[in-house]
Amino acid sequence: MPLIVTGSVAFDSVEAPTGSVQRVLGGSCTYFAAAASFFAPVRIVAAVGDDFDRAHLTTLARFPNVCVEGLETRAGSTTFAWGGKYHEDMNIRETLFTELGVLAEAPPATPANYRDSRYVFLANNHPSVQLDLLAQFPTRAIAVADTMDLWISDAKPELTKLLSQIDGVVLNDQEATQLTGVRNAITAGKRILEMGPTFAVVKKGEHGCVLVHRDGVAALPAYPAEKVIDPTGAGDSFAGGLMGHVASRHTAEHFGGEPVSFDMLRTGLARGTVIASFTIESFSLDRLASLSANDLNARLDEFRGVVAVD
Amino acid sequence: MPLIVTGSVAFDSVEAPTGSVQRVLGGSCTYFAAAASFFAPVRIVAAVGDDFDRAHLTTLARFPNVCVEGLETRAGSTTFAWGGKYHEDMNIRETLFTELGVLAEAPPATPANYRDSRYVFLANNHPSVQLDLLAQFPTRAIAVADTMDLWISDAKPELTKLLSQIDGVVLNDQEATQLTGVRNAITAGKRILEMGPTFAVVKKGEHGCVLVHRDGVAALPAYPAEKVIDPTGAGDSFAGGLMGHVASRHTAEHFGGEPVSFDMLRTGLARGTVIASFTIESFSLDRLASLSANDLNARLDEFRGVVAVD
Repeated sequence: MPLIVTGSVAFDSVEAPTGSVQRVLGGSCTYFAAAASFFAPVRIVAAVGDDFDRAHLTTLARFPNVCVEGLETRAGSTTFAWGGKYHEDMNIRETLFTELGVLAEAPPATPANYRDSRYVFLANNHPSVQLDLLAQFPTRAIAVADTMDLWISDAKPELTKLLSQIDGVVLNDQEATQLTGVRNAITAGKRILEMGPTFAVVKKGEHGCVLVHRDGVAALPAYPAEKVIDPTGAGDSFAGGLMGHVASRHTAEHFGGEPVSFDMLRTGLARGTVIASFTIESFSLDRLASLSANDLNARLDEFRGVVAVD
Repeated sequence: MPLIVTGSVAFDSVEAPTGSVQRVLGGSCTYFAAAASFFAPVRIVAAVGDDFDRAHLTTLARFPNVCVEGLETRAGSTTFAWGGKYHEDMNIRETLFTELGVLAEAPPATPANYRDSRYVFLANNHPSVQLDLLAQFPTRAIAVADTMDLWISDAKPELTKLLSQIDGVVLNDQEATQLTGVRNAITAGKRILEMGPTFAVVKKGEHGCVLVHRDGVAALPAYPAEKVIDPTGAGDSFAGGLMGHVASRHTAEHFGGEPVSFDMLRTGLARGTVIASFTIESFSLDRLASLSANDLNARLDEFRGVVAVD
């Protein structure tokens, strides 16, 4: 069942206590798709400039489950570029620069043969753009969106409209608090459900995640990682693992418009957690590109032991 | 198998966004013992002043599994009193006053018939006092200690000596970082094991806990609580649930000096997590005093669902 993600494909420049890289492949769409592809086939809709070269395409091609037919290369434009610096405490990140490039232009077009996509993830973007993209998938079963502080403060009406049209939202704890005015992650999640979605996933970085769903609450710690090279893309990878799991498990009987079940999402949290734990072990997509299904399953088994209650 | 705890029995005055109380029963020993008593019989060794009245004893008596024979009432002295204030963000607490009272005098004597205690928890105190207390339990099977920032900075040699003589340590994330110079909780835990203990439990408050053991790593989120009235005593209650579980499960074959197993501690984390989730639902011991075994087991079952991976 086709999963689709819309968002950014970017050149990331990262300075961290563990090293630095210049203009490596990154972006919300890229991390999401690479992570999701371990669970289900995934289509991407994004635009890049004509500075996006063969080397970057070769990296994407290392994820055979990612369909890049919807990756639009726009002549005369430049690829979105982001530069960031992580502090000694790698939970603290500052943005050094953004070069919007194609992101300042019209959104990418969705190929006609992608319109049958059933599972839609709208990575962080202006909620008006997310709404336009959402409308392009009329037969979707489940739509989930990410957002960011900028849109919560500057585009609240559009974001509110988006929330009324989607099934779930994935956002970090500060964003959940900003959106609802509530500090407690569970209570904030419940307030978000009052805005429309069936579920909200609150990401807490190294402290794990919380799922607030109409039918229950789930929570997991992060995988207990010691080797953190670059946290960039962890949140998008988490969302990719979660949605990839949903796309792989969502069965025919759910297709009648029934909201996505608590159990399916709950089990997706662990997949998102584990795939994100690999993302942070390298810069860019390096670790994900070398990851095997065996590596993934072994760590998922290990994680079962980490959180076992008995 | 007898579990014993040494620490403070205190009068707590708490100001919080949820209300305030004056001179209610508190203290590390009290919270630990009340929580542990749901899992195993527990003995306390602590001193109070002659201002410790019948009402406080009546509260303690609501926990029939707590033996108060080692609670020394010292004529002419006053009970340790602590005053604290929680901010809107209840993770932030400031101490308003401490009146040491009996804590400034000689430590309490351990009753002769307590010397056969097998499971020893040394709640936060000067490590020299903890070392003296430890020596009073020559046939112990397992000894675990808590500590605090003050002793890490001002009594490091004594603390180092203590760590070389105990099986485990329970401390919060800032303390683990202060003790080791390492921010990552897992790596910090491993450094602590190099100082002697078989395991370290790092408490992260609302973000849960991490167990680093010679045989593995475990982690759990906190119980997803919305109703937080007063976080005071949560960490001591957590330790009580953990140690109560260990005392109830530790079987005869371990008595030959074998270190406490990873599996036993791992399963204890969830008990500590769940019992602490009740402590924070009221001021003082109110919620624990009305807690039934059914309440506890129902929440433990619920928590299994919260962290289930499948």
